[in-house]
Amino acid sequence: MFVKRKLRMKISHSSSLSADRQASGLFNKIYLQMKKLSILLSVVFYTVTLTAQNEALQIRNIFDHALKSDVAYNQLKWLCENTEGRICGTPEAAAAVEYMRQEILKMKLDTMYLQASMVKNWKRGEPEKAFILSKKMGRIEVAVSALGLSIGTGNDGLSAKIIEVSSFKELELLGKNKIEGKIVFFNTPMDPTLINTFSAYGGAAGFRTGGAAEAAKYGAIGVVVRSLTLASDDHPHTGVMHYQDGIKKIPAVMISTKAADLLSSYIEKEKDIEFYFRTTCQTYADVPSNNIIGEIRGSKYPDKIITIGGHLDAWDIGQGAHDDGGGCVQSIEVLRLFSVLGIKPNFTIRAVMFMDEEIAQRGGQKYAEIADQNNENHIMAIELDRGVLVPRAVAFSNYDKDNVNHQKITELFMPYNINIVKGGGGVDIGPLKQYYPNIIFGDLVTDDQRYFDFHHSGNDRFEHVNKRELQLGAATIASFIYLIDKLGVN
Amino acid sequence: MFVKRKLRMKISHSSSLSADRQASGLFNKIYLQMKKLSILLSVVFYTVTLTAQNEALQIRNIFDHALKSDVAYNQLKWLCENTEGRICGTPEAAAAVEYMRQEILKMKLDTMYLQASMVKNWKRGEPEKAFILSKKMGRIEVAVSALGLSIGTGNDGLSAKIIEVSSFKELELLGKNKIEGKIVFFNTPMDPTLINTFSAYGGAAGFRTGGAAEAAKYGAIGVVVRSLTLASDDHPHTGVMHYQDGIKKIPAVMISTKAADLLSSYIEKEKDIEFYFRTTCQTYADVPSNNIIGEIRGSKYPDKIITIGGHLDAWDIGQGAHDDGGGCVQSIEVLRLFSVLGIKPNFTIRAVMFMDEEIAQRGGQKYAEIADQNNENHIMAIELDRGVLVPRAVAFSNYDKDNVNHQKITELFMPYNINIVKGGGGVDIGPLKQYYPNIIFGDLVTDDQRYFDFHHSGNDRFEHVNKRELQLGAATIASFIYLIDKLGVN
Repeated sequence: MFVKRKLRMKISHSSSLSADRQASGLFNKIYLQMKKLSILLSVVFYTVTLTAQNEALQIRNIFDHALKSDVAYNQLKWLCENTEGRICGTPEAAAAVEYMRQEILKMKLDTMYLQASMVKNWKRGEPEKAFILSKKMGRIEVAVSALGLSIGTGNDGLSAKIIEVSSFKELELLGKNKIEGKIVFFNTPMDPTLINTFSAYGGAAGFRTGGAAEAAKYGAIGVVVRSLTLASDDHPHTGVMHYQDGIKKIPAVMISTKAADLLSSYIEKEKDIEFYFRTTCQTYADVPSNNIIGEIRGSKYPDKIITIGGHLDAWDIGQGAHDDGGGCVQSIEVLRLFSVLGIKPNFTIRAVMFMDEEIAQRGGQKYAEIADQNNENHIMAIELDRGVLVPRAVAFSNYDKDNVNHQKITELFMPYNINIVKGGGGVDIGPLKQYYPNIIFGDLVTDDQRYFDFHHSGNDRFEHVNKRELQLGAATIASFIYLIDKLGVN
Repeated sequence: MFVKRKLRMKISHSSSLSADRQASGLFNKIYLQMKKLSILLSVVFYTVTLTAQNEALQIRNIFDHALKSDVAYNQLKWLCENTEGRICGTPEAAAAVEYMRQEILKMKLDTMYLQASMVKNWKRGEPEKAFILSKKMGRIEVAVSALGLSIGTGNDGLSAKIIEVSSFKELELLGKNKIEGKIVFFNTPMDPTLINTFSAYGGAAGFRTGGAAEAAKYGAIGVVVRSLTLASDDHPHTGVMHYQDGIKKIPAVMISTKAADLLSSYIEKEKDIEFYFRTTCQTYADVPSNNIIGEIRGSKYPDKIITIGGHLDAWDIGQGAHDDGGGCVQSIEVLRLFSVLGIKPNFTIRAVMFMDEEIAQRGGQKYAEIADQNNENHIMAIELDRGVLVPRAVAFSNYDKDNVNHQKITELFMPYNINIVKGGGGVDIGPLKQYYPNIIFGDLVTDDQRYFDFHHSGNDRFEHVNKRELQLGAATIASFIYLIDKLGVN
């Protein structure tokens, strides 16, 4: 569609003026000037057309190649099946690093190297146990999952009266008097009426990250948090939590949404009902791990770097298919597509698989620190960490709808149903900002409706990844980087 | 966003003119006229603003309610689990009709009735068997599925040399000499490079529908067709096929994509390899069945009808979750949302569950015939049959980007990431066109990337439906009908 329109513009600009008005010498002079201008314009438009055609064709090539290739899909399959549970500090995480290293080596890029970093080392320990202790119905087992960085309950577990709250305000109103010695149950669901599920997640995630510390202030001895998903199922989710200095550390688990509803109904029916849970998780001393980096050196500006990355660590209770094995294989797929299609970028394009995103983002911090130490010049960074789902938009932080290059990018993506919008960023690329205040951040905006069905749960498995959604994501981001590389970042 | 802009317009129109220019009597006259106009404009804009606000709020209500409700999702669960295999003419199809009848009765709409229609009655018979007969490797069992309306092989099955072709042209070039007495294997995959998977489906579906008749012209004794999916898996797909008058009827099966690749590799390695398959399917005499209709009568124009429908029959090898149980429960969910939110439509809104879409579209034809016999006035019809997937657009056949009402609809859908585009139609509503040439057709355009992983296969199961995608689809189409009902169809 784009190419056609440009061709029409070219034709209209190269048409000559009517013969009637060529009578006067002055007019002839003007006419000749106009004709020259017309020829010049024709050449310019021809060049513009050719360039636009070339770019449209190259994007078509990228999509065609990605949509016919199983490489990234099979890499993700391998990662999921062979390094399941690869939270940072585990042998599985080390195996994932080694596998990706081998895969990048196969691609024969300009550079491949590891970037050592100490990472957090929290271990879940034995499988969690939890029961609703009903006086009428006896012990009802429910599915829970310890939160990352939380302490264990000790061998005997924890049992106490449980009190349900739906906000920190409610907790405060209940106060020490009602909370002390009890287990606090945060049962606030994600808001299903928000169209953007990341907003719904953001609205409820505070109970996971800060619930234990808040409840401990009023003397709670443990917390149970409703899983962060819009699905009603038996998969407890997990995720990182944080204690506060000077506040007692208390054990914290997430409970599946079905079990949360069940527990809530028991609390409503039975006054003073008790709850039991047992976790043996523990944070050990930091251990060494690595980011992995592959790059194609820029042909014109090798010192200017565009980073595309995902994180290789994943929660130990799933396979890390959506979060974020997919982002990792898509990142190196960008380089593979450039490589096999013979695209020689102007800037250096670097794929980075970060380590320890889920717990302390040490890999992202290390990447930024080393960049600064090496006096690298980072012009753009894109993080892929929104699930392997159909791409709906590419976001970048300096997008301007009046910028002609950005309009061109928008137009070139139309046949692929991809919008171009303002946005971008992520926790692994975020630390670059302090060293490179002008860096442009980018993001692949995926359709997020299904994401929290998988995110941080045992449900995040390879079988829930669709090959085409993976391929389309890789093709979209490769095409975007190709265009940014051609047109410049501004 | 929409509401804000309208308010801004209102304010600017009600501002008065500067005092300096009020000197002349003429100007005073003009000024007074302008002031009157200004007041009038203010009133008009206030009304427009209020209406727009109301409409935006009502759409928000519809989405909020749909996104918090499990009704449609649970209906689909029941249909999938209790009427699996409900191809028309089966007891399962009858059970589905009865279940939906009960569900509509519960809703206490203005009307609920059945519409009797004779339907096709093809039965698969015993489970299919198929083997690659390799001289080197022996008998290799592969997964196949008989095509709808195809004849069986007889009790002994069919074995013969198998020849692979990728087009009807290739078949013609091989001719009777090479084809006679053999089984023809149509192994043309859907084109993975097409972004629209329905286009890829359309490009390869001819081998399923017409392959047997074409191959029989050259003396083939059976056909094996590659499954119509972009996934590589072991689920053979099915679908309807057609014989041609005067051409010998030969048995026809579809083979899973994995098995198709395996068969193709054997054909390449072993000259004159044979293939065996056995099907016992048969077309019996037509049987009676029903469309089911529920409606809310229009408060202003009860004689003008907007139809929203899906088909209740589904291929016998799956649960018909995506195709098209979802479209059925979404159709009655539209009426339920109107009902619980107290929306009294101007036009009559009718939800129709058609029977026999998959084989001969008898339900759709009957619906149109009866509409004509009863002198009904059909102004719009929308078919939901593109899978329970995230909605990306609403299409309708008279969409015009310059129409102010259509611009308004576009703007009101922006917060929900739904586009408004030209399009619409479907095989069940299609027959209305011959009686109502001015009827407007509509369609819910879903994201189709995953659709053919499920479509017409044993993989079309409830577990592959996401609750939010179902809810968002129902909310989108309910909101669209609400707006069309308010603004009129033109």
